Amino acid sequence: MRQIASISRLISELSQLPGIGHKTAQRLAFHIVDIPNSKAVKLADAIVDVKRHVRYCDKCFNITDRELCHICENPSRDQTVICVVESARDLLAIEKTHSFKGVYHVLLGAISPLDNIGPDQIKIAELISRIGKEDVSELLIATNPTVEGEATALYISRMLKNVPDLEISRIAHGVPIGGDLEYTDEVTLAKSIEGRRKI
Amino acid sequence: MRQIASISRLISELSQLPGIGHKTAQRLAFHIVDIPNSKAVKLADAIVDVKRHVRYCDKCFNITDRELCHICENPSRDQTVICVVESARDLLAIEKTHSFKGVYHVLLGAISPLDNIGPDQIKIAELISRIGKEDVSELLIATNPTVEGEATALYISRMLKNVPDLEISRIAHGVPIGGDLEYTDEVTLAKSIEGRRKI
Repeated sequence: MRQIASISRLISELSQLPGIGHKTAQRLAFHIVDIPNSKAVKLADAIVDVKRHVRYCDKCFNITDRELCHICENPSRDQTVICVVESARDLLAIEKTHSFKGVYHVLLGAISPLDNIGPDQIKIAELISRIGKEDVSELLIATNPTVEGEATALYISRMLKNVPDLEISRIAHGVPIGGDLEYTDEVTLAKSIEGRRKI
Repeated sequence: MRQIASISRLISELSQLPGIGHKTAQRLAFHIVDIPNSKAVKLADAIVDVKRHVRYCDKCFNITDRELCHICENPSRDQTVICVVESARDLLAIEKTHSFKGVYHVLLGAISPLDNIGPDQIKIAELISRIGKEDVSELLIATNPTVEGEATALYISRMLKNVPDLEISRIAHGVPIGGDLEYTDEVTLAKSIEGRRKI
Protein backbone atom coordinates (compact mmCIF):
# COMPACT_ATOMS: atom_id res chain seq x y z
CA MET A 1 0.00 0.00 0.00
CA ARG A 2 1.30 3.41 -0.93
CA GLN A 3 1.62 5.07 2.46
CA ILE A 4 0.11 8.48 3.05
CA ALA A 5 2.98 10.79 4.07
CA SER A 6 1.37 12.20 7.21
CA ILE A 7 0.42 8.72 8.45
CA SER A 8 3.94 7.39 7.85
CA ARG A 9 5.28 10.33 9.80
CA LEU A 10 2.91 9.74 12.72
CA ILE A 11 3.73 6.02 12.78
CA SER A 12 7.44 6.82 12.84
CA GLU A 13 7.00 9.36 15.68
CA LEU A 14 4.81 7.00 17.72
CA SER A 15 7.16 4.06 17.31
CA GLN A 16 9.91 6.06 19.03
CA LEU A 17 7.94 5.90 22.28
CA PRO A 18 9.04 3.19 24.74
CA GLY A 19 7.26 -0.15 24.31
CA ILE A 20 5.55 0.98 21.09
CA GLY A 21 6.64 -1.15 18.13
CA HIS A 22 5.79 -0.53 14.49
CA LYS A 23 2.60 -2.58 14.62
CA THR A 24 1.25 -0.81 17.72
CA ALA A 25 2.24 2.57 16.27
CA GLN A 26 0.29 1.72 13.13
CA ARG A 27 -2.76 0.74 15.17
CA LEU A 28 -2.56 3.99 17.16
CA ALA A 29 -2.11 6.09 14.01
CA PHE A 30 -5.15 4.49 12.35
CA HIS A 31 -7.10 5.04 15.57
CA ILE A 32 -6.16 8.72 15.52
CA VAL A 33 -7.49 8.94 11.96
CA ASP A 34 -10.84 7.61 13.21
CA ILE A 35 -11.32 9.77 16.33
CA PRO A 36 -12.94 13.22 16.17
CA ASN A 37 -10.64 16.13 15.42
CA SER A 38 -11.19 17.70 18.85
CA LYS A 39 -9.95 14.59 20.66
CA ALA A 40 -6.78 14.43 18.57
CA VAL A 41 -6.10 18.10 19.20
CA LYS A 42 -6.60 17.54 22.95
CA LEU A 43 -4.00 14.77 22.87
CA ALA A 44 -1.52 16.88 20.90
CA ASP A 45 -2.11 19.85 23.25
CA ALA A 46 -1.56 17.68 26.31
CA ILE A 47 1.84 16.61 24.94
CA VAL A 48 2.96 20.18 24.26
CA ASP A 49 1.51 21.36 27.57
CA VAL A 50 3.54 18.85 29.57
CA LYS A 51 6.72 20.07 27.92
CA ARG A 52 5.75 23.66 28.70
CA HIS A 53 4.87 23.18 32.38
CA VAL A 54 6.83 20.24 33.68
CA ARG A 55 10.46 20.60 34.74
CA TYR A 56 12.89 18.92 37.09
CA CYS A 57 13.08 19.88 40.77
CA ASP A 58 16.15 22.09 41.36
CA LYS A 59 17.15 19.96 44.31
CA CYS A 60 16.21 16.32 43.68
CA PHE A 61 15.38 16.16 39.92
CA ASN A 62 11.92 14.77 40.54
CA ILE A 63 9.43 16.19 38.05
CA THR A 64 7.51 19.25 39.17
CA ASP A 65 5.77 22.34 37.86
CA ARG A 66 7.55 24.63 40.34
CA GLU A 67 11.17 25.21 41.35
CA LEU A 68 11.13 22.56 44.05
CA CYS A 69 9.00 19.43 43.95
CA HIS A 70 6.23 18.83 46.52
CA ILE A 71 8.41 16.35 48.41
CA CYS A 72 11.41 18.67 48.82
CA GLU A 73 9.03 21.45 49.85
CA ASN A 74 7.19 19.33 52.41
CA PRO A 75 8.44 20.25 55.92
CA SER A 76 7.12 16.97 57.38
CA ARG A 77 9.52 14.89 55.25
CA ASP A 78 12.78 13.88 56.89
CA GLN A 79 15.40 15.83 54.92
CA THR A 80 18.25 13.86 56.51
CA VAL A 81 17.36 10.63 54.70
CA ILE A 82 17.77 10.59 50.93
CA CYS A 83 16.49 7.75 48.76
CA VAL A 84 18.34 7.52 45.43
CA VAL A 85 16.24 6.32 42.48
CA GLU A 86 16.83 6.11 38.75
CA SER A 87 13.64 7.80 37.60
CA ALA A 88 10.60 9.75 38.73
CA ARG A 89 8.53 6.63 37.99
CA ASP A 90 10.58 4.66 40.52
CA LEU A 91 10.04 7.50 43.02
CA LEU A 92 6.30 7.24 42.39
CA ALA A 93 6.40 3.49 43.01
CA ILE A 94 8.12 4.00 46.37
CA GLU A 95 5.73 6.82 47.33
CA LYS A 96 2.83 4.44 46.74
CA THR A 97 4.15 2.16 49.48
CA HIS A 98 3.79 5.01 52.06
CA SER A 99 6.78 3.46 53.85
CA PHE A 100 9.42 6.07 53.15
CA LYS A 101 9.28 9.43 54.90
CA GLY A 102 12.57 10.94 53.72
CA VAL A 103 13.34 12.83 50.52
CA TYR A 104 14.63 11.64 47.15
CA HIS A 105 17.35 12.13 44.63
CA VAL A 106 16.45 11.16 41.06
CA LEU A 107 19.50 10.21 38.99
CA LEU A 108 17.67 10.47 35.64
CA GLY A 109 19.24 7.22 34.51
CA ALA A 110 21.77 4.59 35.53
CA ILE A 111 25.38 3.96 34.61
CA SER A 112 25.40 1.92 31.41
CA PRO A 113 28.68 1.81 29.46
CA LEU A 114 26.97 -0.02 26.59
CA ASP A 115 24.66 2.97 26.07
CA ASN A 116 27.54 5.45 26.62
CA ILE A 117 26.06 6.55 29.94
CA GLY A 118 28.81 7.14 32.47
CA PRO A 119 28.60 8.67 35.97
CA ASP A 120 28.82 12.17 34.44
CA GLN A 121 25.71 11.67 32.32
CA ILE A 122 23.47 11.16 35.33
CA LYS A 123 22.93 13.28 38.43
CA ILE A 124 25.63 11.74 40.65
CA ALA A 125 27.74 14.93 41.00
CA GLU A 126 24.59 16.73 42.13
CA LEU A 127 23.96 14.02 44.74
CA ILE A 128 27.51 14.31 46.08
CA SER A 129 27.16 18.10 46.22
CA ARG A 130 23.86 17.74 48.14
CA ILE A 131 25.52 15.47 50.69
CA GLY A 132 28.30 18.04 51.10
CA LYS A 133 25.83 20.88 51.69
CA GLU A 134 22.84 19.28 53.41
CA ASP A 135 22.77 17.49 56.73
CA VAL A 136 22.28 13.93 55.45
CA SER A 137 22.52 10.98 57.83
CA GLU A 138 21.31 8.14 55.61
CA LEU A 139 21.41 7.32 51.93
CA LEU A 140 19.11 4.54 50.75
CA ILE A 141 20.13 3.46 47.26
CA ALA A 142 17.04 2.21 45.46
CA THR A 143 18.31 1.86 41.90
CA ASN A 144 16.85 -1.08 39.99
CA PRO A 145 18.17 -4.62 40.64
CA THR A 146 19.62 -4.75 37.11
CA VAL A 147 23.24 -4.79 35.97
CA GLU A 148 23.08 -1.02 35.39
CA GLY A 149 21.28 -0.31 38.66
CA GLU A 150 23.71 -2.43 40.70
CA ALA A 151 26.70 -0.80 39.01
CA THR A 152 25.27 2.63 39.82
CA ALA A 153 24.62 1.64 43.44
CA LEU A 154 28.17 0.33 43.77
CA TYR A 155 29.65 3.46 42.19
CA ILE A 156 27.71 5.79 44.48
CA SER A 157 28.52 3.80 47.61
CA ARG A 158 32.23 3.83 46.73
CA MET A 159 32.24 7.56 46.01
CA LEU A 160 30.62 8.31 49.37
CA LYS A 161 32.09 5.66 51.63
CA ASN A 162 34.49 8.11 53.31
CA VAL A 163 31.85 10.70 54.15
CA PRO A 164 31.69 10.79 57.99
CA ASP A 165 28.40 9.91 59.74
CA LEU A 166 26.69 8.85 56.52
CA GLU A 167 24.98 5.48 56.58
CA ILE A 168 24.60 4.01 53.10
CA SER A 169 22.07 1.23 52.54
CA ARG A 170 20.62 -0.67 49.59
CA ILE A 171 17.02 -1.89 49.27
CA ALA A 172 16.67 -5.60 50.06
CA HIS A 173 16.53 -8.15 47.28
CA GLY A 174 14.52 -11.32 47.84
CA VAL A 175 11.42 -13.34 47.13
CA PRO A 176 8.49 -11.05 46.24
CA ILE A 177 5.51 -11.18 48.60
CA GLY A 178 2.86 -13.46 47.10
CA GLY A 179 5.53 -15.14 45.01
CA ASP A 180 6.32 -18.82 44.96
CA LEU A 181 9.77 -20.22 45.84
CA GLU A 182 9.35 -22.85 43.13
CA TYR A 183 9.03 -20.20 40.44
CA THR A 184 11.57 -17.71 41.81
CA ASP A 185 14.76 -17.49 39.78
CA GLU A 186 17.97 -18.79 41.33
CA VAL A 187 19.66 -15.39 41.65
CA THR A 188 16.75 -13.87 43.55
CA LEU A 189 16.45 -16.94 45.76
CA ALA A 190 20.18 -16.86 46.50
CA LYS A 191 19.86 -13.16 47.38
CA SER A 192 16.96 -13.92 49.72
CA ILE A 193 19.07 -16.48 51.55
CA GLU A 194 22.16 -14.26 51.61
CA GLY A 195 20.06 -11.41 53.04
CA ARG A 196 18.15 -13.55 55.58
CA ARG A 197 16.97 -11.79 58.73
CA LYS A 198 16.44 -13.10 62.27
CA ILE A 199 12.80 -13.41 63.29
CA MET B 1 2.08 11.72 45.09
CA ARG B 2 0.36 15.00 44.32
CA GLN B 3 -0.06 14.75 40.58
CA ILE B 4 1.04 17.61 38.39
CA ALA B 5 -2.05 18.80 36.47
CA SER B 6 -0.53 18.71 33.00
CA ILE B 7 0.85 15.20 33.54
CA SER B 8 -2.49 13.92 34.82
CA ARG B 9 -4.13 15.37 31.74
CA LEU B 10 -1.61 13.74 29.38
CA ILE B 11 -1.97 10.37 31.15
CA SER B 12 -5.75 10.59 30.82
CA GLU B 13 -5.55 11.49 27.12
CA LEU B 14 -3.02 8.73 26.38
CA SER B 15 -5.01 6.08 28.22
CA GLN B 16 -7.92 6.67 25.85
CA LEU B 17 -5.85 5.19 23.03
CA PRO B 18 -6.54 1.53 22.20
CA GLY B 19 -4.37 -0.94 24.11
CA ILE B 20 -2.91 1.78 26.35
CA GLY B 21 -3.82 1.23 30.00
CA HIS B 22 -3.18 3.62 32.87
CA LYS B 23 0.24 2.16 33.64
CA THR B 24 1.45 2.37 30.03
CA ALA B 25 0.02 5.89 29.70
CA GLN B 26 1.97 6.89 32.79
CA ARG B 27 5.17 5.43 31.39
CA LEU B 28 4.64 7.27 28.08
CA ALA B 29 3.85 10.56 29.85
CA PHE B 30 6.99 10.33 31.99
CA HIS B 31 8.96 9.49 28.86
CA ILE B 32 7.60 12.61 27.15
CA VAL B 33 8.79 14.67 30.12
CA ASP B 34 12.31 13.32 29.56
CA ILE B 35 12.63 13.75 25.78
CA PRO B 36 13.81 17.02 24.20
CA ASN B 37 11.15 19.62 23.53
CA SER B 38 11.61 19.40 19.76
CA LYS B 39 10.81 15.67 19.72
CA ALA B 40 7.62 16.17 21.72
CA VAL B 41 6.53 18.97 19.41
CA LYS B 42 7.20 16.74 16.39
CA LEU B 43 4.95 14.06 17.87
CA ALA B 44 2.18 16.56 18.64
CA ASP B 45 2.48 18.06 15.16
CA ALA B 46 2.30 14.63 13.54
CA ILE B 47 -0.99 13.97 15.35
CA VAL B 48 -2.55 17.27 14.28
CA ASP B 49 -1.16 16.87 10.77
CA VAL B 50 -2.81 13.48 10.29
CA LYS B 51 -6.16 14.96 11.23
CA ARG B 52 -5.60 17.81 8.79
CA HIS B 53 -4.56 15.73 5.77
CA VAL B 54 -6.10 12.31 6.10
CA ARG B 55 -9.72 11.67 5.12
CA TYR B 56 -11.85 8.78 3.92
CA CYS B 57 -12.04 7.84 0.24
CA ASP B 58 -15.33 9.12 -1.23
CA LYS B 59 -15.99 5.73 -2.77
CA CYS B 60 -14.65 2.98 -0.49
CA PHE B 61 -13.91 4.76 2.84
CA ASN B 62 -10.30 3.65 2.87
CA ILE B 63 -8.06 6.37 4.29
CA THR B 64 -6.49 8.73 1.79
CA ASP B 65 -5.16 12.26 1.40
CA ARG B 66 -7.12 12.85 -1.80
CA GLU B 67 -10.77 12.42 -2.87
CA LEU B 68 -10.32 8.83 -3.96
CA CYS B 69 -7.82 6.41 -2.46
CA HIS B 70 -4.95 4.99 -4.50
CA ILE B 71 -6.75 1.66 -4.91
CA CYS B 72 -10.00 3.13 -6.28
CA GLU B 73 -7.94 5.34 -8.60
CA ASN B 74 -5.76 2.50 -9.88
CA PRO B 75 -7.01 1.46 -13.37
CA SER B 76 -5.28 -1.93 -13.12
CA ARG B 77 -7.46 -3.00 -10.17
CA ASP B 78 -10.53 -5.06 -11.04
CA GLN B 79 -13.41 -2.72 -10.18
CA THR B 80 -15.97 -5.54 -10.55
CA VAL B 81 -14.76 -7.37 -7.45
CA ILE B 82 -15.30 -5.66 -4.09
CA CYS B 83 -13.76 -6.95 -0.87
CA VAL B 84 -15.66 -5.78 2.21
CA VAL B 85 -13.54 -5.15 5.31
CA GLU B 86 -14.20 -3.62 8.71
CA SER B 87 -11.27 -1.21 8.82
CA ALA B 88 -8.44 0.31 6.81
CA ARG B 89 -6.05 -1.82 8.88
CA ASP B 90 -7.77 -4.99 7.66
CA LEU B 91 -7.48 -3.65 4.11
CA LEU B 92 -3.77 -3.13 4.67
CA ALA B 93 -3.42 -6.71 5.93
CA ILE B 94 -5.09 -8.07 2.78
CA GLU B 95 -3.02 -5.80 0.52
CA LYS B 96 0.13 -7.23 2.08
CA THR B 97 -0.82 -10.71 0.80
CA HIS B 98 -0.73 -9.41 -2.81
CA SER B 99 -3.45 -11.97 -3.56
CA PHE B 100 -6.41 -9.66 -4.14
CA LYS B 101 -6.60 -7.57 -7.29
CA GLY B 102 -10.08 -6.07 -6.87
CA VAL B 103 -11.18 -2.99 -4.95
CA TYR B 104 -12.40 -2.56 -1.38
CA HIS B 105 -15.26 -1.26 0.69
CA VAL B 106 -14.35 -0.29 4.25
CA LEU B 107 -17.34 -0.47 6.62
CA LEU B 108 -15.64 1.56 9.38
CA GLY B 109 -16.87 -0.92 11.97
CA ALA B 110 -19.04 -4.01 12.42
CA ILE B 111 -22.59 -4.54 13.63
CA SER B 112 -22.46 -4.79 17.43
CA PRO B 113 -25.77 -4.34 19.27
CA LEU B 114 -23.95 -4.37 22.63
CA ASP B 115 -22.03 -1.25 21.59
CA ASN B 116 -25.14 0.32 19.99
CA ILE B 117 -23.69 -0.13 16.52
CA GLY B 118 -26.41 -1.14 14.08
CA PRO B 119 -26.26 -1.45 10.28
CA ASP B 120 -26.95 2.29 9.94
CA GLN B 121 -23.89 3.24 11.97
CA ILE B 122 -21.49 1.62 9.50
CA LYS B 123 -21.10 2.07 5.74
CA ILE B 124 -23.55 -0.67 4.61
CA ALA B 125 -26.00 1.68 2.84
CA GLU B 126 -23.04 3.10 0.90
CA LEU B 127 -22.02 -0.44 -0.10
CA ILE B 128 -25.53 -1.26 -1.34
CA SER B 129 -25.62 2.01 -3.27
CA ARG B 130 -22.26 1.18 -4.89
CA ILE B 131 -23.56 -2.21 -6.00
CA GLY B 132 -26.62 -0.50 -7.51
CA LYS B 133 -24.47 1.97 -9.47
CA GLU B 134 -21.26 0.10 -10.29
CA ASP B 135 -20.86 -3.04 -12.35
CA VAL B 136 -20.00 -5.45 -9.54
CA SER B 137 -19.83 -9.18 -10.21
CA GLU B 138 -18.37 -10.44 -6.93
CA LEU B 139 -18.49 -9.41 -3.30
CA LEU B 140 -15.92 -11.01 -1.01
CA ILE B 141 -16.91 -10.39 2.60
CA ALA B 142 -13.73 -10.25 4.69
CA THR B 143 -15.09 -9.02 8.02
CA ASN B 144 -13.34 -10.50 11.07
CA PRO B 145 -14.21 -14.04 12.24
CA THR B 146 -15.76 -12.62 15.42
CA VAL B 147 -19.40 -12.54 16.53
CA GLU B 148 -19.71 -8.96 15.24
CA GLY B 149 -17.88 -9.69 11.99
CA GLU B 150 -19.98 -12.79 11.28
CA ALA B 151 -23.21 -10.91 12.07
CA THR B 152 -22.15 -8.15 9.69
CA ALA B 153 -21.27 -10.67 6.96
CA LEU B 154 -24.65 -12.39 7.40
CA TYR B 155 -26.53 -9.08 7.33
CA ILE B 156 -24.80 -7.92 4.14
CA SER B 157 -25.27 -11.24 2.38
CA ARG B 158 -28.99 -11.23 3.22
CA MET B 159 -29.45 -7.64 2.07
CA LEU B 160 -27.83 -8.40 -1.27
CA LYS B 161 -28.90 -11.98 -1.95
CA ASN B 162 -31.50 -10.93 -4.54
CA VAL B 163 -29.15 -8.77 -6.61
CA PRO B 164 -28.89 -10.52 -10.03
CA ASP B 165 -25.47 -11.73 -11.21
CA LEU B 166 -23.76 -10.91 -7.92
CA GLU B 167 -21.67 -13.65 -6.40
CA ILE B 168 -21.24 -13.24 -2.66
CA SER B 169 -18.43 -15.08 -0.91
CA ARG B 170 -16.84 -15.16 2.52
CA ILE B 171 -13.14 -15.64 3.32
CA ALA B 172 -12.33 -19.22 4.38
CA HIS B 173 -12.00 -20.10 8.03
CA GLY B 174 -9.65 -22.92 8.99
CA VAL B 175 -6.36 -23.97 10.47
CA PRO B 176 -3.72 -21.22 10.09
CA ILE B 177 -0.65 -22.11 8.00
CA GLY B 178 2.18 -23.07 10.31
CA GLY B 179 -0.36 -23.84 13.02
CA ASP B 180 -0.70 -27.11 14.85
CA LEU B 181 -3.93 -29.17 14.85
CA GLU B 182 -3.31 -30.11 18.47
CA TYR B 183 -3.37 -26.48 19.55
CA THR B 184 -6.12 -25.27 17.22
CA ASP B 185 -9.39 -24.45 19.01
CA GLU B 186 -12.40 -26.71 18.33
CA VAL B 187 -14.45 -24.09 16.49
CA THR B 188 -11.66 -23.34 14.02
CA LEU B 189 -10.95 -27.03 13.54
CA ALA B 190 -14.67 -27.74 12.96
CA LYS B 191 -14.75 -24.89 10.41
CA SER B 192 -11.71 -26.35 8.65
CA ILE B 193 -13.46 -29.72 8.32
CA GLU B 194 -16.77 -28.16 7.27
CA GLY B 195 -14.97 -26.09 4.63
CA ARG B 196 -12.77 -28.96 3.34
CA ARG B 197 -11.71 -28.85 -0.30
CA LYS B 198 -10.91 -31.63 -2.79
CA ILE B 199 -7.22 -31.93 -3.65
